[in-house]
Amino acid sequence: MTPETTKITSSSLIAAERVEGTSVYNLAGEKLGTVEDIMLDKVSGKAIYAVMSFGGFLGIGEKYHPLPWSTLKYDEAKGGYVVNLDKKKLESAPTYGVDDDFHWTPEYGRRVDKYYDAPTFW
Amino acid sequence: MTPETTKITSSSLIAAERVEGTSVYNLAGEKLGTVEDIMLDKVSGKAIYAVMSFGGFLGIGEKYHPLPWSTLKYDEAKGGYVVNLDKKKLESAPTYGVDDDFHWTPEYGRRVDKYYDAPTFW
Repeated sequence: MTPETTKITSSSLIAAERVEGTSVYNLAGEKLGTVEDIMLDKVSGKAIYAVMSFGGFLGIGEKYHPLPWSTLKYDEAKGGYVVNLDKKKLESAPTYGVDDDFHWTPEYGRRVDKYYDAPTFW
Repeated sequence: MTPETTKITSSSLIAAERVEGTSVYNLAGEKLGTVEDIMLDKVSGKAIYAVMSFGGFLGIGEKYHPLPWSTLKYDEAKGGYVVNLDKKKLESAPTYGVDDDFHWTPEYGRRVDKYYDAPTFW
């Protein structure tokens, strides 16, 4: 993927490569983390979770927070996503580490959805 | 994004980072190209196009083909996407070059959808 491709956007479409690396803020304007990846439903092609990285340094001790896609609102002025979450809520949220042998299960997905009071995909 | 994150998948969810780099084949089993990016609808979060690279060498002369998401079927055995397209059809399809100053417009989108007989997003 070349940087040139990432310029491709419009008011209604956005490139996945462009979403990845976008900052996530809370309502107070504090930066919570960065979108690292998007989990898509294989069948419908719909984005279900944004995987946000949080903390750590150069990947060491970094944690991934899956956030239900519906919790993210894009803020044009900020150039990032805004979620209605404080840092405390995030600290006890379901996460997994970079080095964890993590496998996504319906149980884990339901836990995430419930934690954020989001309509469940599962 | 670390390679570790890309292992996160399940039978129903797939990471965008995992889709990117996946091969695209035609029904005859010929490799047509590689998925470089996914264009998502900002509002619904739904994948609308897969941007497939085709031809070129080290990015020189490479062309991007946006394929309506509905034209791609994932083939577990092949480990890639299969589309019902021959190379000829692809050669005259709407494309843009890596170095083009390309901006996605509804007109361009409609042209792509029409070319592949796909239900239009626009």
